[in-house]
Amino acid sequence: MRWRPRPGDPLPRTDLALEVSEFLRARERAEIPGLAVQERRLNSISVTRVEVQTPTAAVMAGKPMGQYVTIEAPELAEDDRRLHEEAGRVLAQELGRLLPPDPQAVTLVTGLGNWHATPDSLGPRVVGQLLITRHLRDYVPPELKGRLRPVCAVAPGVLGLTGIETGEILRGIVERVRPQAVIAIDALAARTVARIMTSIQISDTGITPGSGVGNRRLGINAETLGVPVIAIGVPTVVHASTIAGDVVEELLEHFRGNLRFCDIIGQMDQVDRKQLIQEALGEGVGDLVVTPKEIDSMIRQVSRVLAGGLNLALHPGIDPHNLTRYLQG
Amino acid sequence: MRWRPRPGDPLPRTDLALEVSEFLRARERAEIPGLAVQERRLNSISVTRVEVQTPTAAVMAGKPMGQYVTIEAPELAEDDRRLHEEAGRVLAQELGRLLPPDPQAVTLVTGLGNWHATPDSLGPRVVGQLLITRHLRDYVPPELKGRLRPVCAVAPGVLGLTGIETGEILRGIVERVRPQAVIAIDALAARTVARIMTSIQISDTGITPGSGVGNRRLGINAETLGVPVIAIGVPTVVHASTIAGDVVEELLEHFRGNLRFCDIIGQMDQVDRKQLIQEALGEGVGDLVVTPKEIDSMIRQVSRVLAGGLNLALHPGIDPHNLTRYLQG
Amino acid sequence: MRWRPRPGDPLPRTDLALEVSEFLRARERAEIPGLAVQERRLNSISVTRVEVQTPTAAVMAGKPMGQYVTIEAPELAEDDRRLHEEAGRVLAQELGRLLPPDPQAVTLVTGLGNWHATPDSLGPRVVGQLLITRHLRDYVPPELKGRLRPVCAVAPGVLGLTGIETGEILRGIVERVRPQAVIAIDALAARTVARIMTSIQISDTGITPGSGVGNRRLGINAETLGVPVIAIGVPTVVHASTIAGDVVEELLEHFRGNLRFCDIIGQMDQVDRKQLIQEALGEGVGDLVVTPKEIDSMIRQVSRVLAGGLNLALHPGIDPHNLTRYLQG
Amino acid sequence: MRWRPRPGDPLPRTDLALEVSEFLRARERAEIPGLAVQERRLNSISVTRVEVQTPTAAVMAGKPMGQYVTIEAPELAEDDRRLHEEAGRVLAQELGRLLPPDPQAVTLVTGLGNWHATPDSLGPRVVGQLLITRHLRDYVPPELKGRLRPVCAVAPGVLGLTGIETGEILRGIVERVRPQAVIAIDALAARTVARIMTSIQISDTGITPGSGVGNRRLGINAETLGVPVIAIGVPTVVHASTIAGDVVEELLEHFRGNLRFCDIIGQMDQVDRKQLIQEALGEGVGDLVVTPKEIDSMIRQVSRVLAGGLNLALHPGIDPHNLTRYLQG
Repeated sequence: MRWRPRPGDPLPRTDLALEVSEFLRARERAEIPGLAVQERRLNSISVTRVEVQTPTAAVMAGKPMGQYVTIEAPELAEDDRRLHEEAGRVLAQELGRLLPPDPQAVTLVTGLGNWHATPDSLGPRVVGQLLITRHLRDYVPPELKGRLRPVCAVAPGVLGLTGIETGEILRGIVERVRPQAVIAIDALAARTVARIMTSIQISDTGITPGSGVGNRRLGINAETLGVPVIAIGVPTVVHASTIAGDVVEELLEHFRGNLRFCDIIGQMDQVDRKQLIQEALGEGVGDLVVTPKEIDSMIRQVSRVLAGGLNLALHPGIDPHNLTRYLQG
Repeated sequence: MRWRPRPGDPLPRTDLALEVSEFLRARERAEIPGLAVQERRLNSISVTRVEVQTPTAAVMAGKPMGQYVTIEAPELAEDDRRLHEEAGRVLAQELGRLLPPDPQAVTLVTGLGNWHATPDSLGPRVVGQLLITRHLRDYVPPELKGRLRPVCAVAPGVLGLTGIETGEILRGIVERVRPQAVIAIDALAARTVARIMTSIQISDTGITPGSGVGNRRLGINAETLGVPVIAIGVPTVVHASTIAGDVVEELLEHFRGNLRFCDIIGQMDQVDRKQLIQEALGEGVGDLVVTPKEIDSMIRQVSRVLAGGLNLALHPGIDPHNLTRYLQG
Repeated sequence: MRWRPRPGDPLPRTDLALEVSEFLRARERAEIPGLAVQERRLNSISVTRVEVQTPTAAVMAGKPMGQYVTIEAPELAEDDRRLHEEAGRVLAQELGRLLPPDPQAVTLVTGLGNWHATPDSLGPRVVGQLLITRHLRDYVPPELKGRLRPVCAVAPGVLGLTGIETGEILRGIVERVRPQAVIAIDALAARTVARIMTSIQISDTGITPGSGVGNRRLGINAETLGVPVIAIGVPTVVHASTIAGDVVEELLEHFRGNLRFCDIIGQMDQVDRKQLIQEALGEGVGDLVVTPKEIDSMIRQVSRVLAGGLNLALHPGIDPHNLTRYLQG
Repeated sequence: MRWRPRPGDPLPRTDLALEVSEFLRARERAEIPGLAVQERRLNSISVTRVEVQTPTAAVMAGKPMGQYVTIEAPELAEDDRRLHEEAGRVLAQELGRLLPPDPQAVTLVTGLGNWHATPDSLGPRVVGQLLITRHLRDYVPPELKGRLRPVCAVAPGVLGLTGIETGEILRGIVERVRPQAVIAIDALAARTVARIMTSIQISDTGITPGSGVGNRRLGINAETLGVPVIAIGVPTVVHASTIAGDVVEELLEHFRGNLRFCDIIGQMDQVDRKQLIQEALGEGVGDLVVTPKEIDSMIRQVSRVLAGGLNLALHPGIDPHNLTRYLQG
């Protein structure tokens, strides 16, 4: 993206706090008070921590107060075991800071999204690869005692297929299982194509209504579930309307130098642009997404990375690949 | 099966009440008091109603008191649309007798079993093909009002993958959704190969612990959920040990005429036979199942029949195939 | 699409001859000599026949000479059995005109594309639902004799997964099987979102290099295979760059009235626009596609329609759903 | 298995040469001339090499002359990365001895079996995970030159779905691609449950008609394809009739001590036993297979091991997980 947002431009449509902060700083030509950003790099992986510190910043960013850590690795979706292990370790590390310290605390992992819609299937896929241990408490061999957290997991499905708000289902389960923490995994929408399948966002805010590829209606967070909710997400799509918007902006940028052009553009406000895009894309643009052709294999790869990182974070000091040998007995 | 069970022979390992009653009557050479059986036929489909009427009969049959209807069609698993529609209608009819009369009663359908283990995936598959309407109450077009039941559905997964007893998950959901009835769909184990993928059992007793391909630990019934539970099951496997047992019995039967042989056999009681089978099958026999090679396609076919019958029963007088046109809007 | 192409505008990126002819007539403000178009409607289905009749027209349209029939039904991807059967009949009818008259002629159906990339999986899915009969010649029950064409089918996979040009694989198979006709099924790219999953194109030209979602390198046609090749395709994606281009054009259209603007635009030729789009979309734009979020279920539905139509066309006068009963025996 | 076969007992139904040789030596109470067997162990993996050296031995064993190497690891199907890597290395080693020495020799890998029938899906699954390079010859980065074999792969499907003998399809492809060697991967039937998903058989004889879960009709070997064919197989099922047979034998063994019993048994020859089993199992016993309930996940694991070993053997000295980074570019 080359164009610079201008004062008054509305927030882009993205689930990544990182992209919102990039946008805000570009639009305001300044740091945003209450929006702290730090970045660090290890080899081919960068980790950016965005903290929304004040209610004002939260309103401005359209995201609840809290921490948002984004792990970025351009080749995350390729079949590169070394990178996957490294990314898994970083994810485990960041996750470790947010998990309850007590190793006996029950953790409920929930894979949001629709198993049968590829771009939305990330959550259920990850959940299917986790080491589930809550039901084994009494079977765990002595040598593993204390090194295994009690972990349980569910993939509740989507409203369209269940007829029940995902938040409702989770509330029912949480009330029975009484976990000390919930980890919610979801597929996200980004605003730039380059971030599809290359970024992992971890946040302590849970999931806000209207976010995710599936656009959950109800929030899934401490407020609705009564326990802390850690959200982990990976962008799998960009909305077609977002891309169309970018194109318009690029075009305008292109002519910004041209004085006569500018006052013309002046006549065209945001609303006009939206309408323009509608006309270009036609009906049902809302449900149109942009994805790489190879999304199926990419999701397979990335879900393996997430599962690896989660297993590492939840069962520290245990090689997940040996673990199973005990458990499957 | 040609051999006749003898007094003292233990119950066979099957989830079909029909097979238990066949066995008992063969063993006792008599009708079983408190075990009422009626059969009727329509074309290539037979419907047998077994009713366990007394506590004594329940103990004897190892099945809770209640009704068990078995729909049998030898070609159920083939791609025969006519037969499928006929079987679907019969299923809908039988189901209709057990559903709450109030058309506004919320019904929760639950697909038990493991999506990722073919013989155990029947439940989740069926649920994925249902017309889910509970969340549409306010969007339903006027012409459909009153002809659509509010239906919701979940596939909670299996203990090994969730770490939570399926019964627990359902209890949590039932407490929030408060349905007037639950329909639980499960893959069953039969005692005879000929019944795999050719029979549908409908019962008003819910699901007893230890039944199903996945051997649920906790019951899923009125007692545990607090609402009536209708169970619908289709046998997808026969346990390898059951088949081995049959072979032994056939062999013994074969020589029954031979006097000298009989007293030898006399020395060999049930326990010996079990041991024999263990030795023949070796380790882990418990988890071995017998299935047709084409089980994948058979499950696809049969789950379509079940979904069709359920949609018909739950949304009477509506062509499910047009319905979707309204709903997906 | 509201904008009108202008003289000199290059052809849009689409596999549908129908869209090319629409574009050409809009650009030239006239009928195109050698490009015959007729349309007919039945209920909710429209059938448009585009015939490229002259070499000049072929060059202009960028499509080989031949017939291209497009069946359009806006609700094709919904679970509407009636519409599916109607569309299947129309497809069978159109296909019937192109098939060799001899009912004993061996037909080879090939499902192109990648089973594991949802938007590209149409071909393999359809092939998996066909009634395959070539190997049954000697087993077919007398009552079916003469009413069953010998049909065989393969899904050869894609170059990236096989390391062999699809055309090469098919040539090898054709040389051994010696079919009188080949039917190639492929997922296509359209230029307008509204046509995704709503149109079926049937043509007697086979498949040209560079077409399809997977961008085949080698043609699959009479020239390469030595037998007539009927191509059947359904658009499953629009290239992201196409959509971006539309947005630019809409924007320009928007200001066309404005004189001062026009001469500015005059400075911006096609090349500039492409570059603009590149900058807006960023790297790897070539592999980005726009699809509906629900593409998985849509492909399931549409592949069923295609398989139904093919079965009907290839085995006329036989209810495919009974057929299987004989064959699977 | 405890029972000892007796003179005259027919060969068991198995695709593993190892099981045949075990059986023959037990039956004959002696080494079999022309049937050389050596075993070696490394940690939890055992490698047994059976060589059928003479035509007489071939007739006796019902297997063509050649080498059959069986790699056994009881925990092969568990998610144990260390074991998987070790087994992969052993597989690569054994495969290395059979591959043409020339690193530029084109190799065609073919995954036999039916993607949509879980126990028969091993071959296609493995093929989907291979590093395919034949089409990249000209794109391979210089640093990889000479370290990459040109590998291509196809999963031709099964007769029932294609209508073409698999051998025919392969012949057509081989004639065009002209590989120096073919590797055929297939799911096998074993005679003992303990070997399901725990053994890998590698042989230089190709595939004989009637072997494999899918019971290929035509051989796939040097004779039919004109190039050497290396067969790699893993048992995924035991035929139900095999297990039933074992039970009978165990029972007879059980009473062998009993004199009066013996002469009775004397009356019962092999034929009787077969009939007995038929009666015990009922119709369609031929298509009944015994598998572990978790076969789906087991096949996933084992196919990963095979793919790993193949990639290692075909592209020696290259980390397959980095390789992809180059290739996917």
